[in-house]
Amino acid sequence: MECVIEKKANNRPALPSGRSELLDKIVSLAKRRGFVFQSSEIYGGLNGCWDYGPLGVELLRNIKEEWWKTMTYRDNIEGLDASILMHPKVWEASGHVENFTDPMVDCKQCKARFRVDVLSEMINEKKRTKALEDLKNSVTGDSLLTEKYSQALQTEDPFSAVLEDQELGARLMQEINCPQCGNKNTFTTARKFNLMFKTFIGPVEDSGAVVYLRPETAQGIYVNFLNVQSSARQKLPFGIAQIGKAFRNEINTKNFLFRTREFEQMEMQFFIKPADDKKWYDYWKAERLQWFKNLGMTESKLRYHDHPKEKLAHYAKDATDIEYEFPFGWGEIEGIHNRTNFDLNRHEEFSGKSLKYFDDESKEKFIPFIIETSAGASRSFMAFLIDSYYEEVVNNETRSVLRFHPRLASIKVAILPLVNKDGMPEIAREIEKELRRNFKVFYDDKGAIGRRYRRQDEAGTPYCVTVDTQTLEDKTVTIRERDSMEQIRISIDSISKYMDDKLKL
Amino acid sequence: MECVIEKKANNRPALPSGRSELLDKIVSLAKRRGFVFQSSEIYGGLNGCWDYGPLGVELLRNIKEEWWKTMTYRDNIEGLDASILMHPKVWEASGHVENFTDPMVDCKQCKARFRVDVLSEMINEKKRTKALEDLKNSVTGDSLLTEKYSQALQTEDPFSAVLEDQELGARLMQEINCPQCGNKNTFTTARKFNLMFKTFIGPVEDSGAVVYLRPETAQGIYVNFLNVQSSARQKLPFGIAQIGKAFRNEINTKNFLFRTREFEQMEMQFFIKPADDKKWYDYWKAERLQWFKNLGMTESKLRYHDHPKEKLAHYAKDATDIEYEFPFGWGEIEGIHNRTNFDLNRHEEFSGKSLKYFDDESKEKFIPFIIETSAGASRSFMAFLIDSYYEEVVNNETRSVLRFHPRLASIKVAILPLVNKDGMPEIAREIEKELRRNFKVFYDDKGAIGRRYRRQDEAGTPYCVTVDTQTLEDKTVTIRERDSMEQIRISIDSISKYMDDKLKL
Repeated sequence: MECVIEKKANNRPALPSGRSELLDKIVSLAKRRGFVFQSSEIYGGLNGCWDYGPLGVELLRNIKEEWWKTMTYRDNIEGLDASILMHPKVWEASGHVENFTDPMVDCKQCKARFRVDVLSEMINEKKRTKALEDLKNSVTGDSLLTEKYSQALQTEDPFSAVLEDQELGARLMQEINCPQCGNKNTFTTARKFNLMFKTFIGPVEDSGAVVYLRPETAQGIYVNFLNVQSSARQKLPFGIAQIGKAFRNEINTKNFLFRTREFEQMEMQFFIKPADDKKWYDYWKAERLQWFKNLGMTESKLRYHDHPKEKLAHYAKDATDIEYEFPFGWGEIEGIHNRTNFDLNRHEEFSGKSLKYFDDESKEKFIPFIIETSAGASRSFMAFLIDSYYEEVVNNETRSVLRFHPRLASIKVAILPLVNKDGMPEIAREIEKELRRNFKVFYDDKGAIGRRYRRQDEAGTPYCVTVDTQTLEDKTVTIRERDSMEQIRISIDSISKYMDDKLKL
Repeated sequence: MECVIEKKANNRPALPSGRSELLDKIVSLAKRRGFVFQSSEIYGGLNGCWDYGPLGVELLRNIKEEWWKTMTYRDNIEGLDASILMHPKVWEASGHVENFTDPMVDCKQCKARFRVDVLSEMINEKKRTKALEDLKNSVTGDSLLTEKYSQALQTEDPFSAVLEDQELGARLMQEINCPQCGNKNTFTTARKFNLMFKTFIGPVEDSGAVVYLRPETAQGIYVNFLNVQSSARQKLPFGIAQIGKAFRNEINTKNFLFRTREFEQMEMQFFIKPADDKKWYDYWKAERLQWFKNLGMTESKLRYHDHPKEKLAHYAKDATDIEYEFPFGWGEIEGIHNRTNFDLNRHEEFSGKSLKYFDDESKEKFIPFIIETSAGASRSFMAFLIDSYYEEVVNNETRSVLRFHPRLASIKVAILPLVNKDGMPEIAREIEKELRRNFKVFYDDKGAIGRRYRRQDEAGTPYCVTVDTQTLEDKTVTIRERDSMEQIRISIDSISKYMDDKLKL
């Protein structure tokens, strides 16, 4: 054999020190190897939007495919693909028109607009403390304002809480200089800014034509609840699963794919009898964490973050986040919520159509409860990408390797003929052709074999098939495994079966 | 065996007479069986948007999966998934801001807005002829207007052509009553109405914040040309393939999924040396038609529609449509275009970034030509659905059957235990579990076996596995094939292999 024999490296090497250094490395590798590009890069980019390149689109597809099979290849969950544009009443019923907002203030002088909590962060602590103390004196004697003021002081960010209040905010604003133009006494009072993207349907751009880009996929499931239930003849408990894009006009996008304006969700809504809510909430909470583990995500970097009762959203009775430890800290990759009958109740009220389910056994009609599992496809992509990144020293050289689970890997197998002669390319192309019927395959006959392996390590390809001189003699090839770098020799006939076995969960 | 023995029916039965009757049947079946629902139906629907139900989402997924594998599981085509929101300059460069428009007029009285060609259709022919003749007299003596007038008369729709012209249109308008309010002399002159949906990114809704929902996926490929080429180390000729949503604010949506406001495209852009354009245009034209045939679409209902040179779009040197014969007539399901170097030239000009390719062999730098294959996923879905619909008489009863190619079928196999006793359900569930690992499977143990078969015929399920009393004795089952309705008996152990073989192209 002509290939370099490699020593097995340390299996659990240290990650690069410095958390932002790691994120920088990932972003750079993602662009260089074609996982993720900035959207419209040649035009300077579009903030909060990203494009998935050749390796990225395959990883994303595999994540979505695994989710889809896990969630819908079963008796009691049906699939759905609802449109991104929906009737505007949907978002009144869901509460998004009223509540999906951030408070913002404008500077009247320079026209800059600030999210209240961001403005708060831009002012140094001394000034904030002083401004709050001045305000205390100013409200003395007004019992209502004094009460509001003391309530604000008890929140995590009293300065923002005061700013969000119309009256208190107006007074506090007078104490603040605009961080952009420096002028004082120049801010409007805080106004709600809706995070939904709006557009106009039809030829006339007026308020009657406003539709929104959906900020979540869930509502497409709720409004189709009875259509799906009756066409699929389902009985409670059953779920509806959907993968699709959603859009939020985030003021502060950040952390690569973590907070973006356009993103993809993988959501499942499970419709149940109200009395069973605890049971199914616990069931899905466990199932969904297990899914990430089954696909190889490091267990110690996964945790639940249960929401305390007093911080639950208006529709939720119970809520937990599945969090991953990103280089910038713990962040939500999926939420599991007991949404009660809130959503269907609201859609019944706003549409005037009954969304009640008739239970054959008890002969009762009622609105089901819903347990929601809402995962970010884009965030899962980022977590799987970061989690699989390792650097290790092999033969005194550092190799970067993406240790994707074989089912997630963008390319499943690379075919590498050692030399371009003696009929080797023909055999290699035959193997390629056979495997390509079922797998994403990469063929590479250029450069030293060691460098070809490194390129596949960095792309996360789990297996390399090497065709060498011995292949010509006995119709065997070597299969090299990415993580251990160990090589075994098998006959050409058994490659397909070998791959099939390895790619089962 | 307890199941009814069915006679093989006529294999090529007549389609229901009347073309719109057929479309009505398809729309009704699509809703009833969960292929397609109207978007936001409980709110009265949203015009031009549709939701894919449990059976529909699987059919759509299978179509897209077949396309993806056919197009990207090869050496010289890379995948991409670009964002829907892109930098607004992209659409200036592409020409969409300027040219992607329909001419519209408003009634000043009742504020109704009409697309010019639609308004033209709303006026009866006598009145149109009369108005045109009156106009002839009115322009006599003005040589410029007379010339414009004679040119308009030579077009297919002279009335619309006259309306679209500022001066002639203004005069003609005076002759027309508004079809809505009946008033005369009330129309504005024709103005261009852009078909792109626009929205605002960031907190301020002004012209500097306008972005568009992409009206086609192609531009996402063009702006990523060099990113993909360099990260994947591709050389010409090579392609970039993408599946994704696009949006057009169509004034007249029609024909079910054919003309909608939200739809999905499957596009591949093939980058080539300019001298090779004829060769690759012919290659892709043939390949793409073959793809539909390979997946079972009726050959006699497929044809090319070559665009005559004088009707080519501004960017195209050659163009053909692959058309399917829908119940409402022939309609485009895919376009193949020689776009020359128009798009990359424009993006180079508008971005100021070089998009030239360096050719290793000739040592030349140049902008590649592009051959585009642009298929509608939603339109393909509709064509496959309609094409597979058959009605035939079996045992004096009419059965509806969707003869999907097995690889496209929403459900691959139904497991039907004949009676719920003697361990049959257990065996059936075992078979279900085994098959579900790889296939979308449906389990049904309710009702007479004949009715269960009919339900699967109408869903397009190609195979039914029936577990009966003999299964308990010899571990065999029957497999019933949807189209021939023939049944064979095989051992439980060989079901998986049988299915694998059948599902190969």
